Amino acid sequence: MYPHGGNIEELSAYFKLKNRRIYDFSANINPLGAPGAIKKLIGKNPDCILNYPSEYSQGTKPLIAKYIGVRKENLIITNGSIEGIYLIARLLAKRDCLIITPAFSEYERAIKINGGRCRYLKTRECDCFKADFDKIYKLFPRIKAIFLCNPNNPTGAVIARSDLLLLAKKCEEKGILLIIDEAFINFLASPDDATLAKDCLKTDNILVIGSLTKFFALPGLRIGYITANEKLIRKISNFCFPWAVNYLAQIAASRAIGDSAYILKSRNFMLKEKDFLFHRLNELSGITAYHPSANFILCRIKNGNVNSEKLFSRLGEKGIFIRDCSNFRGLDKRYFRVAVKSRQDNLKLISALKNAFNNQ
Amino acid sequence: MYPHGGNIEELSAYFKLKNRRIYDFSANINPLGAPGAIKKLIGKNPDCILNYPSEYSQGTKPLIAKYIGVRKENLIITNGSIEGIYLIARLLAKRDCLIITPAFSEYERAIKINGGRCRYLKTRECDCFKADFDKIYKLFPRIKAIFLCNPNNPTGAVIARSDLLLLAKKCEEKGILLIIDEAFINFLASPDDATLAKDCLKTDNILVIGSLTKFFALPGLRIGYITANEKLIRKISNFCFPWAVNYLAQIAASRAIGDSAYILKSRNFMLKEKDFLFHRLNELSGITAYHPSANFILCRIKNGNVNSEKLFSRLGEKGIFIRDCSNFRGLDKRYFRVAVKSRQDNLKLISALKNAFNNQ
Repeated sequence: MYPHGGNIEELSAYFKLKNRRIYDFSANINPLGAPGAIKKLIGKNPDCILNYPSEYSQGTKPLIAKYIGVRKENLIITNGSIEGIYLIARLLAKRDCLIITPAFSEYERAIKINGGRCRYLKTRECDCFKADFDKIYKLFPRIKAIFLCNPNNPTGAVIARSDLLLLAKKCEEKGILLIIDEAFINFLASPDDATLAKDCLKTDNILVIGSLTKFFALPGLRIGYITANEKLIRKISNFCFPWAVNYLAQIAASRAIGDSAYILKSRNFMLKEKDFLFHRLNELSGITAYHPSANFILCRIKNGNVNSEKLFSRLGEKGIFIRDCSNFRGLDKRYFRVAVKSRQDNLKLISALKNAFNNQ
Repeated sequence: MYPHGGNIEELSAYFKLKNRRIYDFSANINPLGAPGAIKKLIGKNPDCILNYPSEYSQGTKPLIAKYIGVRKENLIITNGSIEGIYLIARLLAKRDCLIITPAFSEYERAIKINGGRCRYLKTRECDCFKADFDKIYKLFPRIKAIFLCNPNNPTGAVIARSDLLLLAKKCEEKGILLIIDEAFINFLASPDDATLAKDCLKTDNILVIGSLTKFFALPGLRIGYITANEKLIRKISNFCFPWAVNYLAQIAASRAIGDSAYILKSRNFMLKEKDFLFHRLNELSGITAYHPSANFILCRIKNGNVNSEKLFSRLGEKGIFIRDCSNFRGLDKRYFRVAVKSRQDNLKLISALKNAFNNQ
């Protein structure tokens, strides 16, 4: 029934052993339990350490499927969205891919280590970093897949669902896979107006990468997902290995997606707070801030005497870390990115930026 | 300096900010923090959730390197030893590999999904499941790598370090990689008499896979490692992606390996308890138990009326889970494996086995 030992949860359900003491001799684990320091670390939840996670997140999968609005056959739970990127890149092995830039550098690395070649389409500041679809269509003969991030990190540019469906349709006609990284989509005012996570059911060329890291503030745990049609999911599952998502991540995910009050509160908070920070940033004479859509803001330094590296250091010394964006393909030493945090933290950032530009 | 945001620990050290309040605007995480249920789950250690783990376990690596006795350049920290198996299998892509069986089924799967072919050398009960090296040598012309587990899961057979070094030498002459899975080695009375983890420094054809899961009782966290010479480690690192090992696993590993009292206590406990369970199992007329070396015991059912599947179900109904070994290549429905647990649990197992055989 199970190829390995340690499937306590599944076997307890199979044998109808709810609330019974279980003696698991099928997994070979030190019976003294974890060292004392580790037990303290996890406090009242020793299960998170002592039990193997479900091999392929079987318990969590139906819940996340329901949350996204797909069937569990359309879903792979991944070790952070980063595993999703690397799994898809394996599927694409040796194919030429287009990356809409500036973009997360791991798309490029994942494609390259799988023997693929990258082409880039740079979005421009003067177009509000919107991708020019006509330019994409012109590249169609030379590519087999497109990677894009919506809303885009680090620019914040959003492509509407209707536009994406048009692009997907054109891609389908040419046998091109469209990979959309929706890591930040839940921060949008209306995620439904942008997401293609459910559209995978209807076509065989859309792959959506999702993350629970950002919206649910769980970066330490590592949990993300891929949605696609059943055929693609089966192909990608071939590359997965068991227990890739740890126990705590699996149960945390199950609980997080059920907290609808938290989801609403977070979205509303971010809608207001990102506008607040955006306006305050633009009041600073030294920088231009680009209109945010999710929970981060891309900024350009106007003053030639300060660059992103210098700014990073000046703020870093004070314990304020920003993202120097000079290593993003398509950006340079004029750009940096900040997360939107609490009002108090955001004011701290504004005041530190003021100082940094005044004391140049 | 860092290709991504969220490197709080490294940046705090770089900017010498020990004990200072940090404002991290470089990672784009929901400022409300995780949902309440998740915060409760982790108790007093919100860092484990709220911070990104180190991208490639940079903080933990020097500590584990010291613990094993290698340099950090000889080490990759993996998402459980299972990631180590799959990473090495990628390195071997399309090469023919020998697996000493019975063995963990994931070696075979990992080799096959990377386009390699598997050959098998079955160890036999009449040889105490010891591998016949002469038979291995005869297969040399047809293979490019060997996977073996030492001590072997599920048979418990141990190959001495001196013998392994001889095998490694012969492999080296023929350009064959020797991959040794040492997941259970810490339970041996003298791990040093069996491990090749340090020998990777001297040769370029030994790869050792290690696990912190079993000995330190941390299956929920997912942490393991690969040791090999620098060149091999660099090649394998190409396939790794960032944040594969979660935050809790990284700090738990750092603390676990430092608890020498726990290590000693665990080893001594297991040395006694495995012998106790072994003798009690052999007193049962229905089964033959094979001499254990680590923390598990392989058993064969002598009575033809009961098979491992039936036994699995009979005990399972009572909340006692054993490992039906019929799906191990080289074993069949006569075999099952049990972990060595606490004295109380082991007595429970013995009594349940007695009942199962009496009530057939």
